[in-house]
Amino acid sequence: MTDQMLRVSVPDDSWLDSLDDLTDRVELVVWDTATAQPEGHLDLVLRPYVLDNSVLPGFDTARMGLVQAQSLGFDGVADALPAGGTYANAVGVHEASTAELAIALALASLRHVDDFARAMGEGAWEQPWSSSLIDRRVMLLGVGGIGTELAKRLDGFGCDLVRVANSARDDDLGHVHATSELPDLLPAVDVVIVAVPLTAETTGMVDDAFIAALPDDALIVNVARGKVVDTDAVVRADGRIRFAADVFDPEPLPADHPLWTVPRVLVSPHVGGRSSAMRPRVERVVRRQIDRLLAGQEPDDVVVRT
Amino acid sequence: MTDQMLRVSVPDDSWLDSLDDLTDRVELVVWDTATAQPEGHLDLVLRPYVLDNSVLPGFDTARMGLVQAQSLGFDGVADALPAGGTYANAVGVHEASTAELAIALALASLRHVDDFARAMGEGAWEQPWSSSLIDRRVMLLGVGGIGTELAKRLDGFGCDLVRVANSARDDDLGHVHATSELPDLLPAVDVVIVAVPLTAETTGMVDDAFIAALPDDALIVNVARGKVVDTDAVVRADGRIRFAADVFDPEPLPADHPLWTVPRVLVSPHVGGRSSAMRPRVERVVRRQIDRLLAGQEPDDVVVRT
Repeated sequence: MTDQMLRVSVPDDSWLDSLDDLTDRVELVVWDTATAQPEGHLDLVLRPYVLDNSVLPGFDTARMGLVQAQSLGFDGVADALPAGGTYANAVGVHEASTAELAIALALASLRHVDDFARAMGEGAWEQPWSSSLIDRRVMLLGVGGIGTELAKRLDGFGCDLVRVANSARDDDLGHVHATSELPDLLPAVDVVIVAVPLTAETTGMVDDAFIAALPDDALIVNVARGKVVDTDAVVRADGRIRFAADVFDPEPLPADHPLWTVPRVLVSPHVGGRSSAMRPRVERVVRRQIDRLLAGQEPDDVVVRT
Repeated sequence: MTDQMLRVSVPDDSWLDSLDDLTDRVELVVWDTATAQPEGHLDLVLRPYVLDNSVLPGFDTARMGLVQAQSLGFDGVADALPAGGTYANAVGVHEASTAELAIALALASLRHVDDFARAMGEGAWEQPWSSSLIDRRVMLLGVGGIGTELAKRLDGFGCDLVRVANSARDDDLGHVHATSELPDLLPAVDVVIVAVPLTAETTGMVDDAFIAALPDDALIVNVARGKVVDTDAVVRADGRIRFAADVFDPEPLPADHPLWTVPRVLVSPHVGGRSSAMRPRVERVVRRQIDRLLAGQEPDDVVVRT
C-alpha cells in the first residue's frame, strides 16, 4: 500500500455511494465513457454494463490504467481499444446467474411452463405429460465458469451429467469427454446445455449434423454466445428437438426472424447476467482491483493488452 | 415366499408388459376400477393415476386386499371406501418430480421466463432486470417428502434456506422453525415454497395476514394442495407479491376465475407428478408391495383402513 490516491472513473452516480467507504484512498470520477474523457490520468476505468465498443477507439490509453468491464465476454475489444490499453473482464460476476437462467430455461421447456404461461390468456387448464430432468442424461458442453455453476446446480436433480470440453480430462467431478467424442455421445443425450467460450472451433458447433445426431425431443439450451449455434439449423429442425436460449445469432433477434415461431423454441432476450446477483459481485471485482492497484500488484483477469 | 399366486388388478394393458416378468408368481387382471369388479378375490388393486373417488363406494372390499394408489394425496378416500378396505398411497413416486416443478415455477417467475414466453408472439426483445435465487432467503414450508427433495435441489443455488414445519426441531440439514414463528420470519423472506400436507391447521394457512407479512415482490410457490392457500387473498394482493402454483382452490381453476389475470401470477395445471419420472417409480412401488404380500408381510404406506 502506498500513500498515493487512486483515480477511478465509475459509469454513473450510483457507484459514488457504493464505494464511498474508499474515499480516503480513491478519488471517484463519474464518466459514462461515451462523453469526453475526464482530464488527467485515470488509474481504473469501470465500463458501463451495457457495452458499446464504438466508444473504445476514442479512449486515450496514455492517460488510462486498467479498463475494467462488468461483463465476461470481450468480443471486439482487442480491435477497438487503442495501443497501450489494458482490459479486464468481469470474472465471477455473471457465471452463477447465467447458469441459473440456463436451468430456468431447461426446466421451463421440459415441464411446459412456457406453454402454461401462454395458455393463461385463455384460462386454459390442460395437463400434458412432460419430461423431467430426473433419470435423464444431461450434457454440459463447456466446463468453465458457467459449466461449473451448472454442475453445482444440477447435482440435486437426479440426472446423469455428461461433461464435454475441448480435450478429454479428469477433474474433481469425474471424467470430461473431448468434443471429438460428440458424434458418439449425442445420440444418447436428452438435454445439452451449451456453455463454451466463442472461439474459431466453437463457432457454428451446433449445426445440422449436431442436431441430427440428437434423439427426437432432445433439448438444446444455449447460454454461451449466439454464434455457437447455427440459428438456421434450429429453424430447419422445425421442432423435432426443443431449443431454449438466451443468446442468438443475430442478436437482438429481429422481430420478423423465423425462430420466434418455430415449435418448441423458447427465447430469452440475453438476460443471463441481468439479475440481482450482478451488482454486489461487480462491486467485489472493482474493490479487489482497487486493492491490487493500491498494493502495486498487477490487476486480475486482464484479457486484452493492446 | 409361498407357493400361492398373487392376483393383482392393473388399470390398463400397459401394465401387463411392465410386469410380465412376474407372471410365475402373479396373475394379472386388467380392471380400470370404473367398470364391474372382476369375479373372485384380488390381492392388490392398482388404481388408475387419475383419481375418481366416486368409484370407491362400489368396491367389494370383502373380495379385495390392498388398494394401491399411484398418487400421494388421499383426500376423501376414508369416507368413500367401504368398511374393510386397506389403502396405500404412492410414496417416493411424485415428490422429486413435484419439487422439480416447484423450482421450475420459482425460476420462471423470478427470471421472467413466463413473460418471455408470452412476448414471443410479438417477437419482442426487452431485457428486464430480475431477481435471482442467488443471495436470497428461501423458505421451505414443509419438511416432508417434497420438502426434502426441494432442499436437495436448492442446495446448489446459492440461497439461504429457512425451513419451517409444524413444530421446531433439528435434523441433518440444520434447524427447522415452527409455524408459530412465521410472523417473525416472513418479513425477511424473498421466496416461500409451500409443500405442507393438507390438514385442519394448514387449510387457509397462506391468507391475507401471511401475504401482508411478506415484503413487496416476494414470491409464493404452492405445490402442496390448493386449499393451503386462500386464492381470494392472492387475488386481493393484486400483484404486490408474485404467486406461482400448480394446485388451486378451486381446481381445476375455472376459465373465468380472476386469478388468471392477476399480475405476476403463474398458473401450472396440477402437473407436478405428471412427468417421465412417474411410471418407473410407480412400478417400483407395485413391485415392492407384491414382494411384501408374497412374503406374507404387511404392505408399506397404508394410510387408510376402513
